Amino acid sequence: MQPQDLDLNYGLLEDILKAFLQNEIRKFGFSSVVLGLSGGIDSAVVAELAVRALGPEHVLALKMPYKESSRESLEHADLMIRRLNIKAEERPVTPMADDFFRDVPEGERLRRGNIMARTRMVLLYDVSARDGSLVAGTSNKTELLLGYGTMFGDMASAVNPLGDLYKTQVRGLARHLGIPSILIDKAPSADLWEGQSDESDLGFSYGEVDLLLYMMLELRMEREAILGEGVSASFYDRVRKMVVRNQYKRLMPVIAKISGRTPGIDFRYARDWQEVR
Amino acid sequence: MQPQDLDLNYGLLEDILKAFLQNEIRKFGFSSVVLGLSGGIDSAVVAELAVRALGPEHVLALKMPYKESSRESLEHADLMIRRLNIKAEERPVTPMADDFFRDVPEGERLRRGNIMARTRMVLLYDVSARDGSLVAGTSNKTELLLGYGTMFGDMASAVNPLGDLYKTQVRGLARHLGIPSILIDKAPSADLWEGQSDESDLGFSYGEVDLLLYMMLELRMEREAILGEGVSASFYDRVRKMVVRNQYKRLMPVIAKISGRTPGIDFRYARDWQEVR
Repeated sequence: MQPQDLDLNYGLLEDILKAFLQNEIRKFGFSSVVLGLSGGIDSAVVAELAVRALGPEHVLALKMPYKESSRESLEHADLMIRRLNIKAEERPVTPMADDFFRDVPEGERLRRGNIMARTRMVLLYDVSARDGSLVAGTSNKTELLLGYGTMFGDMASAVNPLGDLYKTQVRGLARHLGIPSILIDKAPSADLWEGQSDESDLGFSYGEVDLLLYMMLELRMEREAILGEGVSASFYDRVRKMVVRNQYKRLMPVIAKISGRTPGIDFRYARDWQEVR
Repeated sequence: MQPQDLDLNYGLLEDILKAFLQNEIRKFGFSSVVLGLSGGIDSAVVAELAVRALGPEHVLALKMPYKESSRESLEHADLMIRRLNIKAEERPVTPMADDFFRDVPEGERLRRGNIMARTRMVLLYDVSARDGSLVAGTSNKTELLLGYGTMFGDMASAVNPLGDLYKTQVRGLARHLGIPSILIDKAPSADLWEGQSDESDLGFSYGEVDLLLYMMLELRMEREAILGEGVSASFYDRVRKMVVRNQYKRLMPVIAKISGRTPGIDFRYARDWQEVR
Protein backbone atom coordinates (compact mmCIF):
# COMPACT_ATOMS: atom_id res chain seq x y z
CA MET A 1 0.00 0.00 0.00
CA GLN A 2 1.30 3.45 -0.98
CA PRO A 3 -0.05 6.93 -0.19
CA GLN A 4 -0.85 7.21 -3.90
CA ASP A 5 -3.45 4.46 -3.38
CA LEU A 6 -5.53 7.04 -1.51
CA ASP A 7 -5.41 9.53 -4.32
CA LEU A 8 -8.71 10.62 -5.82
CA ASN A 9 -9.80 12.31 -9.03
CA TYR A 10 -9.35 15.75 -7.49
CA GLY A 11 -11.06 17.61 -10.32
CA LEU A 12 -14.18 15.50 -9.89
CA LEU A 13 -13.86 15.79 -6.09
CA GLU A 14 -13.79 19.58 -6.34
CA ASP A 15 -17.03 19.51 -8.37
CA ILE A 16 -18.72 17.14 -5.90
CA LEU A 17 -17.77 19.24 -2.88
CA LYS A 18 -18.84 22.50 -4.54
CA ALA A 19 -22.22 20.95 -5.36
CA PHE A 20 -22.44 19.63 -1.78
CA LEU A 21 -21.88 23.11 -0.34
CA GLN A 22 -24.30 24.75 -2.76
CA ASN A 23 -27.00 22.14 -2.13
CA GLU A 24 -26.71 21.78 1.66
CA ILE A 25 -26.63 25.54 2.18
CA ARG A 26 -29.17 26.80 -0.34
CA LYS A 27 -31.83 24.11 0.30
CA PHE A 28 -32.59 25.84 3.63
CA GLY A 29 -32.67 29.32 2.19
CA PHE A 30 -29.13 30.23 3.27
CA SER A 31 -26.52 31.61 0.88
CA SER A 32 -23.45 32.20 3.06
CA VAL A 33 -21.02 30.40 5.32
CA VAL A 34 -18.71 31.42 8.12
CA LEU A 35 -15.65 29.38 9.06
CA GLY A 36 -12.71 29.56 11.41
CA LEU A 37 -9.60 30.26 9.32
CA SER A 38 -6.66 29.00 11.35
CA GLY A 39 -3.88 29.32 8.80
CA GLY A 40 -3.84 25.53 8.43
CA ILE A 41 -4.48 23.46 5.33
CA ASP A 42 -7.94 22.13 6.25
CA SER A 43 -9.62 25.50 6.80
CA ALA A 44 -7.78 26.90 3.76
CA VAL A 45 -9.26 24.14 1.57
CA VAL A 46 -12.77 24.71 2.97
CA ALA A 47 -12.48 28.47 2.38
CA GLU A 48 -11.29 27.87 -1.21
CA LEU A 49 -14.12 25.41 -1.90
CA ALA A 50 -16.72 27.72 -0.36
CA VAL A 51 -15.58 30.67 -2.48
CA ARG A 52 -15.67 28.57 -5.64
CA ALA A 53 -19.10 27.19 -4.69
CA LEU A 54 -20.84 30.31 -3.34
CA GLY A 55 -18.74 33.29 -4.42
CA PRO A 56 -16.35 35.33 -2.26
CA GLU A 57 -19.12 37.64 -1.07
CA HIS A 58 -20.76 34.66 0.65
CA VAL A 59 -17.76 33.53 2.68
CA LEU A 60 -16.67 35.12 5.98
CA ALA A 61 -13.43 34.04 7.64
CA LEU A 62 -13.04 34.37 11.39
CA LYS A 63 -9.52 34.60 12.73
CA MET A 64 -9.72 33.65 16.40
CA PRO A 65 -6.18 33.78 17.80
CA TYR A 66 -5.18 33.20 21.40
CA LYS A 67 -2.35 35.31 22.81
CA GLU A 68 0.00 32.34 22.34
CA SER A 69 -1.11 31.57 18.75
CA SER A 70 1.81 31.49 16.34
CA ARG A 71 2.39 34.62 14.25
CA GLU A 72 2.86 32.31 11.27
CA SER A 73 -0.69 30.94 11.55
CA LEU A 74 -2.16 34.43 11.34
CA GLU A 75 0.08 35.30 8.40
CA HIS A 76 -1.03 32.16 6.56
CA ALA A 77 -4.67 32.96 7.30
CA ASP A 78 -4.13 36.46 5.88
CA LEU A 79 -2.46 34.91 2.83
CA MET A 80 -5.66 32.97 2.11
CA ILE A 81 -7.91 35.98 2.81
CA ARG A 82 -6.02 38.05 0.24
CA ARG A 83 -5.91 35.13 -2.21
CA LEU A 84 -9.67 34.62 -1.99
CA ASN A 85 -10.63 38.26 -1.58
CA ILE A 86 -13.06 37.40 1.20
CA LYS A 87 -14.30 39.32 4.24
CA ALA A 88 -12.54 38.51 7.48
CA GLU A 89 -12.90 39.43 11.15
CA GLU A 90 -10.34 39.00 13.90
CA ARG A 91 -11.97 37.94 17.18
CA PRO A 92 -9.28 37.07 19.71
CA VAL A 93 -10.40 34.34 22.14
CA THR A 94 -7.92 35.43 24.82
CA PRO A 95 -10.34 37.28 27.17
CA MET A 96 -12.94 34.47 27.30
CA ALA A 97 -10.39 31.66 27.32
CA ASP A 98 -8.42 33.28 30.15
CA ASP A 99 -11.65 33.66 32.17
CA PHE A 100 -12.22 29.91 31.79
CA PHE A 101 -8.51 29.16 32.41
CA ARG A 102 -8.62 30.76 35.90
CA ASP A 103 -9.71 27.35 37.22
CA VAL A 104 -7.48 25.27 34.93
CA PRO A 105 -3.80 24.70 35.90
CA GLU A 106 -1.23 25.75 33.29
CA GLY A 107 -0.08 22.18 32.61
CA GLU A 108 -3.59 20.91 31.77
CA ARG A 109 -3.06 21.26 28.01
CA LEU A 110 -5.90 19.00 26.89
CA ARG A 111 -8.45 20.82 29.06
CA ARG A 112 -7.16 24.20 27.84
CA GLY A 113 -7.19 23.03 24.25
CA ASN A 114 -10.81 21.87 24.56
CA ILE A 115 -11.82 25.17 26.17
CA MET A 116 -10.23 27.13 23.33
CA ALA A 117 -11.88 24.98 20.67
CA ARG A 118 -15.28 25.42 22.33
CA THR A 119 -14.78 29.15 22.84
CA ARG A 120 -14.17 29.41 19.10
CA MET A 121 -17.36 27.43 18.45
CA VAL A 122 -19.34 29.92 20.59
CA LEU A 123 -17.96 32.81 18.51
CA LEU A 124 -18.53 31.06 15.16
CA TYR A 125 -22.12 30.17 16.00
CA ASP A 126 -22.87 33.66 17.27
CA VAL A 127 -21.57 35.20 14.05
CA SER A 128 -23.63 32.69 12.03
CA ALA A 129 -26.73 33.79 13.99
CA ARG A 130 -25.80 37.45 13.51
CA ASP A 131 -25.36 37.09 9.74
CA GLY A 132 -27.89 34.36 9.00
CA SER A 133 -25.17 32.08 7.64
CA LEU A 134 -24.14 28.48 8.30
CA VAL A 135 -20.95 27.28 9.99
CA ALA A 136 -18.72 25.32 7.60
CA GLY A 137 -16.81 22.52 9.32
CA THR A 138 -13.11 21.82 8.77
CA SER A 139 -12.60 18.43 10.49
CA ASN A 140 -11.16 15.79 8.16
CA LYS A 141 -11.88 12.05 8.25
CA THR A 142 -8.58 11.13 9.93
CA GLU A 143 -9.38 13.47 12.84
CA LEU A 144 -12.99 12.29 13.10
CA LEU A 145 -11.99 8.62 13.15
CA LEU A 146 -9.15 9.07 15.67
CA GLY A 147 -11.28 11.42 17.78
CA TYR A 148 -8.48 13.96 17.42
CA GLY A 149 -10.76 16.95 17.90
CA THR A 150 -13.11 18.56 20.43
CA MET A 151 -16.78 17.61 20.66
CA PHE A 152 -18.90 20.78 20.54
CA GLY A 153 -15.72 22.58 19.54
CA ASP A 154 -13.90 22.20 16.21
CA MET A 155 -16.09 19.14 15.50
CA ALA A 156 -19.23 21.30 15.64
CA SER A 157 -20.54 22.59 12.32
CA ALA A 158 -23.59 22.69 10.10
CA VAL A 159 -21.97 21.37 6.92
CA ASN A 160 -18.57 19.71 6.62
CA PRO A 161 -17.08 19.12 3.16
CA LEU A 162 -13.91 17.40 4.49
CA GLY A 163 -15.41 14.83 6.89
CA ASP A 164 -14.96 11.94 4.46
CA LEU A 165 -11.44 12.85 3.30
CA TYR A 166 -8.28 11.53 4.92
CA LYS A 167 -5.63 14.19 5.58
CA THR A 168 -3.61 12.69 2.70
CA GLN A 169 -6.59 13.36 0.41
CA VAL A 170 -7.07 16.89 1.77
CA ARG A 171 -3.44 17.54 0.82
CA GLY A 172 -4.04 16.15 -2.67
CA LEU A 173 -7.10 18.36 -3.04
CA ALA A 174 -5.17 21.38 -1.75
CA ARG A 175 -2.51 20.89 -4.42
CA HIS A 176 -5.21 20.53 -7.07
CA LEU A 177 -6.86 23.75 -5.86
CA GLY A 178 -3.55 25.61 -5.93
CA ILE A 179 -3.47 26.38 -2.21
CA PRO A 180 -0.10 28.06 -1.46
CA SER A 181 2.41 25.24 -0.85
CA ILE A 182 3.63 26.90 2.36
CA LEU A 183 0.31 25.93 3.91
CA ILE A 184 0.43 22.39 2.49
CA ASP A 185 4.00 21.52 3.39
CA LYS A 186 4.23 22.84 6.98
CA ALA A 187 3.71 20.50 9.95
CA PRO A 188 -0.02 20.35 10.73
CA SER A 189 -0.87 22.00 14.06
CA ALA A 190 -4.02 22.88 15.97
CA ASP A 191 -1.90 25.76 17.33
CA LEU A 192 -3.22 25.15 20.85
CA TRP A 193 0.17 25.91 22.40
CA GLU A 194 3.52 27.13 21.12
CA GLY A 195 5.28 24.57 18.95
CA GLN A 196 2.32 22.18 19.10
CA SER A 197 2.25 19.69 16.19
CA ASP A 198 -0.47 17.14 15.55
CA GLU A 199 1.97 14.42 14.49
CA SER A 200 4.23 14.77 17.54
CA ASP A 201 1.08 14.82 19.68
CA LEU A 202 -0.21 11.65 18.06
CA GLY A 203 3.16 9.92 17.81
CA PHE A 204 2.72 8.99 14.14
CA SER A 205 2.40 10.74 10.79
CA TYR A 206 -0.87 11.41 9.01
CA GLY A 207 0.49 9.52 6.02
CA GLU A 208 1.06 6.35 8.05
CA VAL A 209 -2.26 6.41 9.87
CA ASP A 210 -4.26 7.24 6.74
CA LEU A 211 -2.98 4.09 5.02
CA LEU A 212 -3.85 2.01 8.08
CA LEU A 213 -7.33 3.51 8.43
CA TYR A 214 -7.93 3.01 4.69
CA MET A 215 -7.01 -0.68 4.97
CA MET A 216 -9.24 -1.05 8.06
CA LEU A 217 -12.31 0.82 6.83
CA GLU A 218 -12.44 1.01 3.06
CA LEU A 219 -10.64 -2.26 2.28
CA ARG A 220 -12.04 -3.98 5.43
CA MET A 221 -8.80 -5.94 5.75
CA GLU A 222 -8.40 -8.19 8.79
CA ARG A 223 -5.68 -7.56 11.37
CA GLU A 224 -3.34 -10.30 10.06
CA ALA A 225 -3.58 -9.06 6.49
CA ILE A 226 -2.78 -5.49 7.60
CA LEU A 227 0.20 -6.64 9.66
CA GLY A 228 1.27 -8.52 6.54
CA GLU A 229 1.53 -5.10 4.84
CA GLY A 230 4.26 -4.17 7.31
CA VAL A 231 2.14 -2.36 9.89
CA SER A 232 3.36 -3.06 13.43
CA ALA A 233 0.96 -4.85 15.78
CA SER A 234 1.30 -2.09 18.39
CA PHE A 235 0.48 0.64 15.85
CA TYR A 236 -2.51 -1.35 14.55
CA ASP A 237 -3.86 -2.02 18.05
CA ARG A 238 -3.35 1.54 19.20
CA VAL A 239 -5.12 3.10 16.19
CA ARG A 240 -7.94 0.55 16.30
CA LYS A 241 -8.50 1.38 19.97
CA MET A 242 -8.54 5.13 19.23
CA VAL A 243 -11.20 4.62 16.56
CA VAL A 244 -13.34 2.43 18.82
CA ARG A 245 -12.97 4.57 21.95
CA ASN A 246 -13.94 7.74 20.15
CA GLN A 247 -17.09 6.41 18.56
CA TYR A 248 -19.12 8.44 21.08
CA LYS A 249 -17.75 11.63 19.50
CA ARG A 250 -19.39 10.66 16.22
CA LEU A 251 -22.85 10.13 17.75
CA MET A 252 -25.61 12.26 19.27
CA PRO A 253 -25.98 12.13 23.09
CA VAL A 254 -27.42 8.84 24.34
CA ILE A 255 -31.12 9.17 25.18
CA ALA A 256 -32.94 6.68 27.42
CA LYS A 257 -35.50 4.98 25.17
CA ILE A 258 -38.95 5.00 26.82
CA SER A 259 -41.52 5.58 24.07
CA GLY A 260 -42.18 4.08 20.69
CA ARG A 261 -40.55 7.02 18.91
CA THR A 262 -37.38 8.37 20.48
CA PRO A 263 -35.54 11.36 18.98
CA GLY A 264 -32.41 10.06 17.27
CA ILE A 265 -33.29 6.36 17.65
CA ASP A 266 -36.51 5.75 15.75
CA PHE A 267 -37.58 9.28 14.93
CA ARG A 268 -35.00 9.85 12.24
CA TYR A 269 -36.07 12.02 9.35
CA ALA A 270 -33.48 13.40 6.99
CA ARG A 271 -32.26 16.89 7.68
CA ASP A 272 -34.23 18.23 4.70
CA TRP A 273 -37.54 16.68 5.64
CA GLN A 274 -40.14 17.06 2.84
CA GLU A 275 -42.20 19.85 4.44
CA VAL A 276 -39.34 22.27 4.74
CA ARG A 277 -39.60 23.63 1.20
CA MET B 1 -57.19 13.23 24.62
CA GLN B 2 -56.33 14.23 28.18
CA PRO B 3 -52.95 14.93 29.84
CA GLN B 4 -53.55 11.74 31.84
CA ASP B 5 -53.22 9.82 28.57
CA LEU B 6 -49.51 10.64 28.67
CA ASP B 7 -49.09 9.28 32.16
CA LEU B 8 -46.62 6.44 32.62
CA ASN B 9 -45.97 3.83 35.31
CA TYR B 10 -43.63 6.17 37.14
CA GLY B 11 -42.30 3.54 39.50
CA LEU B 12 -41.24 1.38 36.57
CA LEU B 13 -39.94 4.46 34.76
CA GLU B 14 -37.74 5.33 37.74
CA ASP B 15 -36.25 1.83 37.66
CA ILE B 16 -35.62 1.97 33.90
CA LEU B 17 -33.91 5.37 34.10
CA LYS B 18 -31.76 4.37 37.06
CA ALA B 19 -30.63 1.28 35.17
CA PHE B 20 -29.98 3.45 32.09
CA LEU B 21 -27.73 5.79 34.05
CA GLN B 22 -25.89 2.94 35.75
CA ASN B 23 -25.37 1.07 32.50
CA GLU B 24 -24.44 3.95 30.18
CA ILE B 25 -21.99 5.40 32.72
CA ARG B 26 -20.35 2.31 34.14
CA LYS B 27 -19.90 0.46 30.86
CA PHE B 28 -17.11 2.90 29.99
CA GLY B 29 -15.43 2.72 33.36
CA PHE B 30 -16.97 5.93 34.69
CA SER B 31 -18.82 6.13 38.00
CA SER B 32 -19.83 9.79 38.31
CA VAL B 33 -21.82 12.48 36.57
CA VAL B 34 -21.81 16.25 36.58
CA LEU B 35 -24.88 18.27 35.64
CA GLY B 36 -26.00 21.86 35.51
CA LEU B 37 -28.52 22.41 38.32
CA SER B 38 -30.63 25.39 37.29
CA GLY B 39 -33.30 25.28 39.98
CA GLY B 40 -35.78 24.01 37.40
CA ILE B 41 -37.71 20.75 37.38
CA ASP B 42 -35.78 18.98 34.62
CA SER B 43 -32.32 19.25 36.21
CA ALA B 44 -33.85 18.50 39.63
CA VAL B 45 -35.29 15.22 38.28
CA VAL B 46 -31.97 14.26 36.64
CA ALA B 47 -30.08 15.01 39.87
CA GLU B 48 -32.57 12.91 41.87
CA LEU B 49 -32.34 9.99 39.43
CA ALA B 50 -28.54 10.17 39.34
CA VAL B 51 -28.30 10.08 43.13
CA ARG B 52 -30.67 7.11 43.33
CA ALA B 53 -28.75 5.34 40.54
CA LEU B 54 -25.14 6.12 41.46
CA GLY B 55 -25.16 7.39 45.03
CA PRO B 56 -24.82 11.01 46.21
CA GLU B 57 -21.02 10.82 46.25
CA HIS B 58 -21.09 10.28 42.48
CA VAL B 59 -23.16 13.35 41.56
CA LEU B 60 -21.77 16.88 41.26
CA ALA B 61 -24.11 19.83 40.69
CA LEU B 62 -22.83 22.95 38.96
CA LYS B 63 -24.69 26.16 39.64
CA MET B 64 -23.80 28.50 36.78
CA PRO B 65 -25.70 31.76 37.38
CA TYR B 66 -25.48 34.88 35.28
CA LYS B 67 -25.65 38.23 37.07
CA GLU B 68 -29.30 38.51 35.97
CA SER B 69 -30.28 34.98 37.01
CA SER B 70 -33.24 34.94 39.39
CA ARG B 71 -32.49 34.57 43.10
CA GLU B 72 -35.31 32.05 43.23
CA SER B 73 -33.55 29.71 40.77
CA LEU B 74 -30.46 29.58 42.95
CA GLU B 75 -32.55 29.00 46.08
CA HIS B 76 -34.36 26.12 44.37
CA ALA B 77 -31.05 24.66 43.25
CA ASP B 78 -29.80 24.86 46.85
CA LEU B 79 -33.00 23.19 48.00
CA MET B 80 -32.21 20.18 45.82
CA ILE B 81 -28.53 20.14 46.84
CA ARG B 82 -29.52 19.93 50.53
CA ARG B 83 -32.27 17.39 49.78
CA LEU B 84 -29.86 15.13 47.92
CA ASN B 85 -26.81 15.81 50.05
CA ILE B 86 -24.62 16.17 46.95
CA LYS B 87 -21.48 18.17 46.24
CA ALA B 88 -22.03 21.44 44.43
CA GLU B 89 -19.91 24.20 42.92
CA GLU B 90 -20.98 27.70 41.97
CA ARG B 91 -19.30 28.84 38.75
CA PRO B 92 -20.82 32.16 37.63
CA VAL B 93 -20.83 32.54 33.83
CA THR B 94 -20.95 36.34 34.01
CA PRO B 95 -17.26 37.10 33.19
CA MET B 96 -17.11 34.85 30.10
CA ALA B 97 -20.62 35.68 28.92
CA ASP B 98 -20.00 39.43 29.22
CA ASP B 99 -16.77 39.04 27.20
CA PHE B 100 -18.81 37.40 24.43
CA PHE B 101 -21.64 39.94 24.85
CA ARG B 102 -19.35 42.89 24.03
CA ASP B 103 -20.19 42.29 20.36
CA VAL B 104 -23.86 41.40 20.91
CA PRO B 105 -26.43 44.22 21.26
CA GLU B 106 -28.55 44.15 24.45
CA GLY B 107 -31.78 43.40 22.60
CA GLU B 108 -30.40 40.27 20.86
CA ARG B 109 -31.91 37.91 23.44
CA LEU B 110 -31.70 34.72 21.36
CA ARG B 111 -28.02 35.26 20.58
CA ARG B 112 -27.28 36.05 24.23
CA GLY B 113 -29.28 33.05 25.38
CA ASN B 114 -27.33 30.75 23.05
CA ILE B 115 -24.02 32.22 24.23
CA MET B 116 -24.96 31.60 27.88
CA ALA B 117 -26.06 28.03 27.17
CA ARG B 118 -22.81 27.30 25.33
CA THR B 119 -20.70 28.99 27.99
CA ARG B 120 -22.31 26.65 30.53
CA MET B 121 -21.51 23.69 28.28
CA VAL B 122 -17.83 24.73 28.20
CA LEU B 123 -17.77 24.80 32.03
CA LEU B 124 -19.65 21.50 32.41
CA TYR B 125 -17.37 19.68 29.99
CA ASP B 126 -14.24 21.11 31.59
CA VAL B 127 -15.37 19.91 35.02
CA SER B 128 -16.19 16.48 33.56
CA ALA B 129 -12.63 16.33 32.16
CA ARG B 130 -11.20 17.53 35.48
CA ASP B 131 -13.09 14.90 37.51
CA GLY B 132 -13.25 12.05 34.97
CA SER B 133 -17.05 12.11 35.02
CA LEU B 134 -19.76 12.26 32.34
CA VAL B 135 -22.12 15.15 31.64
CA ALA B 136 -25.76 14.23 32.33
CA GLY B 137 -28.20 15.92 29.98
CA THR B 138 -31.43 17.60 31.11
CA SER B 139 -33.25 18.28 27.81
CA ASN B 140 -36.72 16.72 27.68
CA LYS B 141 -38.49 15.34 24.59
CA THR B 142 -40.76 18.37 24.15
CA GLU B 143 -37.72 20.67 23.96
CA LEU B 144 -35.81 18.33 21.64
CA LEU B 145 -38.75 17.99 19.24
CA LEU B 146 -39.57 21.72 19.18
CA GLY B 147 -35.87 22.63 18.95
CA TYR B 148 -36.40 24.75 22.06
CA GLY B 149 -32.78 24.51 23.17
CA THR B 150 -29.25 25.39 22.10
CA MET B 151 -27.17 23.06 19.95
CA PHE B 152 -23.78 22.51 21.59
CA GLY B 153 -25.26 24.20 24.64
CA ASP B 154 -27.96 22.75 26.90
CA MET B 155 -28.57 20.06 24.24
CA ALA B 156 -24.98 18.81 24.65
CA SER B 157 -24.45 15.89 27.01
CA ALA B 158 -23.05 12.39 27.24
CA VAL B 159 -26.14 10.66 28.64
CA ASN B 160 -29.66 12.08 28.79
CA PRO B 161 -32.31 10.26 30.83
CA LEU B 162 -35.11 12.73 29.96
CA GLY B 163 -34.77 12.92 26.16
CA ASP B 164 -37.75 10.60 25.54
CA LEU B 165 -40.07 12.15 28.14
CA TYR B 166 -42.53 14.92 27.39
CA LYS B 167 -42.52 17.76 29.93
CA THR B 168 -45.89 16.45 31.19
CA GLN B 169 -44.20 13.11 31.90
CA VAL B 170 -41.21 14.77 33.57
CA ARG B 171 -43.71 16.46 35.89
CA GLY B 172 -45.37 13.13 36.61
CA LEU B 173 -42.01 11.56 37.37
CA ALA B 174 -41.05 14.52 39.57
CA ARG B 175 -44.18 14.04 41.68
CA HIS B 176 -43.46 10.32 41.94
CA LEU B 177 -39.88 11.05 43.07
CA GLY B 178 -41.09 13.53 45.66
CA ILE B 179 -39.35 16.54 44.16
CA PRO B 180 -40.40 19.62 46.21
CA SER B 181 -43.66 20.85 44.66
CA ILE B 182 -42.36 24.43 44.53
CA LEU B 183 -40.06 23.30 41.72
CA ILE B 184 -42.83 21.36 39.97
CA ASP B 185 -45.54 23.99 40.07
CA LYS B 186 -43.61 27.15 39.12
CA ALA B 187 -43.62 28.41 35.52
CA PRO B 188 -40.82 26.67 33.61
CA SER B 189 -38.02 29.08 32.66
CA ALA B 190 -34.58 28.80 31.11
CA ASP B 191 -33.81 31.88 33.23
CA LEU B 192 -32.00 33.52 30.32
CA TRP B 193 -33.34 36.95 31.23
CA GLU B 194 -35.41 38.38 34.06
CA GLY B 195 -38.99 37.17 34.03
CA GLN B 196 -38.34 34.80 31.10
CA SER B 197 -40.86 31.93 30.86
CA ASP B 198 -40.76 29.12 28.34
CA GLU B 199 -44.52 29.09 27.81
CA SER B 200 -44.81 32.84 27.18
CA ASP B 201 -41.79 32.50 24.87
CA LEU B 202 -43.42 29.67 22.95
CA GLY B 203 -46.94 31.09 23.05
CA PHE B 204 -48.52 27.83 24.26
CA SER B 205 -48.40 25.62 27.32
CA TYR B 206 -46.34 22.47 27.65
CA GLY B 207 -49.52 20.57 28.44
CA GLU B 208 -51.15 21.59 25.14
CA VAL B 209 -48.11 20.92 22.97
CA ASP B 210 -47.33 17.58 24.63
CA LEU B 211 -50.77 16.25 23.72
CA LEU B 212 -50.35 17.43 20.14
CA LEU B 213 -46.85 15.95 19.80
CA TYR B 214 -48.09 12.68 21.34
CA MET B 215 -50.89 12.46 18.77
CA MET B 216 -48.45 13.29 15.95
CA LEU B 217 -45.58 11.00 16.92
CA GLU B 218 -46.73 8.18 19.12
CA LEU B 219 -50.25 7.82 17.80
CA ARG B 220 -49.24 8.83 14.23
CA MET B 221 -52.59 10.53 13.79
CA GLU B 222 -53.17 12.43 10.53
CA ARG B 223 -53.77 16.18 10.51
CA GLU B 224 -57.57 15.92 10.08
CA ALA B 225 -57.90 13.44 12.93
CA ILE B 226 -55.89 15.71 15.23
CA LEU B 227 -57.95 18.77 14.29
CA GLY B 228 -60.96 16.59 15.05
CA GLU B 229 -59.67 16.41 18.64
CA GLY B 230 -60.13 20.18 18.92
CA VAL B 231 -56.60 21.26 18.04
CA SER B 232 -56.63 24.47 15.95
CA ALA B 233 -55.19 24.26 12.43
CA SER B 234 -52.80 27.14 13.12
CA PHE B 235 -51.46 25.49 16.29
CA TYR B 236 -51.05 22.15 14.49
CA ASP B 237 -49.25 23.73 11.52
CA ARG B 238 -47.00 25.88 13.69
CA VAL B 239 -45.89 22.99 15.89
CA ARG B 240 -45.44 20.66 12.94
CA LYS B 241 -43.20 23.24 11.27
CA MET B 242 -41.15 23.69 14.46
CA VAL B 243 -40.54 19.94 14.63
CA VAL B 244 -39.57 19.71 10.95
CA ARG B 245 -37.41 22.85 10.91
CA ASN B 246 -35.41 21.77 13.93
CA GLN B 247 -34.56 18.30 12.71
CA TYR B 248 -31.00 19.48 12.04
CA LYS B 249 -30.57 20.00 15.81
CA ARG B 250 -31.18 16.30 16.33
CA LEU B 251 -28.52 15.15 13.85
CA MET B 252 -24.74 15.17 13.57
CA PRO B 253 -23.18 17.74 11.19
CA VAL B 254 -23.73 16.91 7.52
CA ILE B 255 -20.63 15.35 5.97
CA ALA B 256 -20.07 15.23 2.20
CA LYS B 257 -20.11 11.53 1.29
CA ILE B 258 -17.08 10.64 -0.86
CA SER B 259 -15.91 7.18 0.20
CA GLY B 260 -17.59 3.86 0.75
CA ARG B 261 -17.57 4.32 4.54
CA THR B 262 -18.40 7.81 5.78
CA PRO B 263 -18.39 8.62 9.51
CA GLY B 264 -22.01 8.91 10.64
CA ILE B 265 -23.52 7.65 7.36
CA ASP B 266 -22.31 4.09 6.84
CA PHE B 267 -19.67 3.79 9.52
CA ARG B 268 -22.13 3.53 12.38
CA TYR B 269 -21.08 1.30 15.24
CA ALA B 270 -22.91 1.51 18.54
CA ARG B 271 -21.37 3.72 21.16
CA ASP B 272 -20.25 0.66 23.15
CA TRP B 273 -18.51 -1.10 20.31
CA GLN B 274 -17.44 -4.65 21.24
CA GLU B 275 -13.72 -3.99 21.68
CA VAL B 276 -14.12 -1.37 24.33
CA ARG B 277 -14.35 -3.77 27.28
